[in-house]
Amino acid sequence: MSINEDNIKIIEGGICAVSGVETAGIKQGKYGVAIILSLDSNAAAVFTSNKVVAAPVIHTKEVIKDGKLSAIVANSGNANCFTGSHGIEDCEYIVEHTSKLINIPKDQIASSSTGVIGRKMPMDIIEPLIDKVSLKLTHSAEASTDAAKAIMTTDTHPKECAVEINIEGKPVRIGGICKGSGMIAPNMGTMLAYITTDAIIDSKYINIALKNSVSKSFNMIVVDGDESTNDTAILLANGKSNVEVVSGDIINKDFQKALDYVCINLAKQMVRDGEGANKFLEVNIKGASSPTDAVLASKSVVSSMLFKSALFGEDPNWGRIVSAVGYSGCEMDPNIISISIGNESIFEKPDSDKSVYLVKNGEILAFEGTDNLITAEKLMSSTDIVVDIDLNLSDGEATAWGCDLSYDYVKINGEYTT
Amino acid sequence: MSINEDNIKIIEGGICAVSGVETAGIKQGKYGVAIILSLDSNAAAVFTSNKVVAAPVIHTKEVIKDGKLSAIVANSGNANCFTGSHGIEDCEYIVEHTSKLINIPKDQIASSSTGVIGRKMPMDIIEPLIDKVSLKLTHSAEASTDAAKAIMTTDTHPKECAVEINIEGKPVRIGGICKGSGMIAPNMGTMLAYITTDAIIDSKYINIALKNSVSKSFNMIVVDGDESTNDTAILLANGKSNVEVVSGDIINKDFQKALDYVCINLAKQMVRDGEGANKFLEVNIKGASSPTDAVLASKSVVSSMLFKSALFGEDPNWGRIVSAVGYSGCEMDPNIISISIGNESIFEKPDSDKSVYLVKNGEILAFEGTDNLITAEKLMSSTDIVVDIDLNLSDGEATAWGCDLSYDYVKINGEYTT
Repeated sequence: MSINEDNIKIIEGGICAVSGVETAGIKQGKYGVAIILSLDSNAAAVFTSNKVVAAPVIHTKEVIKDGKLSAIVANSGNANCFTGSHGIEDCEYIVEHTSKLINIPKDQIASSSTGVIGRKMPMDIIEPLIDKVSLKLTHSAEASTDAAKAIMTTDTHPKECAVEINIEGKPVRIGGICKGSGMIAPNMGTMLAYITTDAIIDSKYINIALKNSVSKSFNMIVVDGDESTNDTAILLANGKSNVEVVSGDIINKDFQKALDYVCINLAKQMVRDGEGANKFLEVNIKGASSPTDAVLASKSVVSSMLFKSALFGEDPNWGRIVSAVGYSGCEMDPNIISISIGNESIFEKPDSDKSVYLVKNGEILAFEGTDNLITAEKLMSSTDIVVDIDLNLSDGEATAWGCDLSYDYVKINGEYTT
Repeated sequence: MSINEDNIKIIEGGICAVSGVETAGIKQGKYGVAIILSLDSNAAAVFTSNKVVAAPVIHTKEVIKDGKLSAIVANSGNANCFTGSHGIEDCEYIVEHTSKLINIPKDQIASSSTGVIGRKMPMDIIEPLIDKVSLKLTHSAEASTDAAKAIMTTDTHPKECAVEINIEGKPVRIGGICKGSGMIAPNMGTMLAYITTDAIIDSKYINIALKNSVSKSFNMIVVDGDESTNDTAILLANGKSNVEVVSGDIINKDFQKALDYVCINLAKQMVRDGEGANKFLEVNIKGASSPTDAVLASKSVVSSMLFKSALFGEDPNWGRIVSAVGYSGCEMDPNIISISIGNESIFEKPDSDKSVYLVKNGEILAFEGTDNLITAEKLMSSTDIVVDIDLNLSDGEATAWGCDLSYDYVKINGEYTT
């Protein structure tokens, strides 16, 4: 347990750190099912912007229209996408079946699927899993981990995060689980994220709060640039804390920061578990002409296959960095740009000896044979690499996260089932 | 020698297939220099749209403003990009030095560089190479190949193409060389292409003709999506054929087709030589709402890291194809789409037994265990893979080319010099 500078206390328990939440999950081979219960919650969701969407996305968009949910049923192993009318029927059956088992109206149950696209749902496997999971629902840290495991596909470990903050002396909690390691992309990849909170927040503001956090977290990570058909992030607020986090049309800043924290923490966990990833990359932009430009520049660098390959090869190839900024579409002038590389942000610690400028105000400091280049090459051997880029134009800022491109990415995606 | 359906005769000789063109090239380790002479030519060029551009791109944009060129000097091994004022001085020196050696005014000499970004030009290596090359200029097929070799970087072989057409009974020739295998991207990658012709075509129309061809060729190939700082395609027309190819404000269709042919042929050679590429991918779109939409869809599929990995793994993963179309930004409806895969275009040969439908009018024909999927899996073992996608919306068409994503791509770009 630790408390960071924003007075956010990191706690255990994942989605079950939040009172009133029950869950369970079972993973059986490549298939898995999780059910999450948070009765009478206000709910918001963000979905993929791919024009091809899975049956459960179509379903969840419909049931969340009234801003209310009590449960989520999710499966891994099959994405139930591009499966035609069969897929819609299978999704409806899953929700109806779950509805009967847990005794919750079907219009209060969201659903998700993740896995292979374009294959019929193996209902003979999924249905018995739902039956078993429905009998195991409990409020415990273990249950949250089980649920996180049940939704994994090529993930190598479950992903959870939970925090507590104090609002006017009263504790408010936020917990989350997610899965995702391939197809992590601009505007989200094949990722599922379920976040619970005991805050009181109404339908209008829960949407705003979730979108604020998603724009800084799940939308700022890139593994391969492919955008999934199934991406779904859902926030459930059951009000059990009796703390209202909106007053006078303004969302409490500490609550928003805590929600940002949970989403960014989960997003970073996904990138660290990126398919075949050996290195974790953070790219901070400042001095951009606008926040939008900063987003373009940061995402372009974390998406560059050439820089991702250089990262794998531990090569501080700032030429590829500046080139990626140059084609990002952001306003930029190579004659005034500054670029540093290392293991921590030079923006945050200007005197850091764990980061070094390669280019400063347009002047190249890392030609062959220079101390700066030699230092940079040494720093590249670490797992965590931070690139800071100051465009020196205005005050637009953004941070994006990514990973290297390794042999294993190709192996995993070349061999992943047909 | 062969003649295709458009009466385009394929001939030998590269840029020297065109009378009046002299060239030479020397490759020495990773460095190389080529000089191309085509006196008093009308000239057009297309450049990278990256905001970071190399010194020779700045230079060539300036000298080509009057639409006239007599020579090109190009080097490989160093891109002379992001090299500050040193870079501009080095580029000017290269052009001045070449000007003296070959006795052509420096404002009639274009220049290009390709190789590592952000390193000072090794003038002690490049200058002696220019001296030697300037003494070897000849009009021969061997010289064209030498020039094509001299500009190679990670290319594994030189790339040339030449054709002859008849316009009102008189022969007109077009020849080209190019280099490029990494950073091949939308809007061109680190590619250099030099095309010569003996046609008479004035400054206005030579620009239109080149842009027409580039939009169908170099702009439709993708290896890794990174866009280079140095891309340059130059067309030189010296008029030696005495055949005017523009009449009444219209570019002769056979000339445009022949120029398209040379550019597409060179572009395909680049993709086939894509870094680490084992497979060649052609994606044909028809039925798009607009030509622009067709371009978006075709480029999205050839750029998808997931489908490129599937290609490497010989997996006919149409789920990834339809997903890539879905996030491309083009208008599409998964319920009416048709997708085929194989070794030749089903659009061209509807009865082909070397291609098979995976999805037809939204109906999935390639579920597990189906004959179509089994056939598709067999066809994937070939080197050349063609994907035809009919969006069934309107009449927009486009073709893009790409390659698989292999271990070797990562190896080449992870280890390519810092």
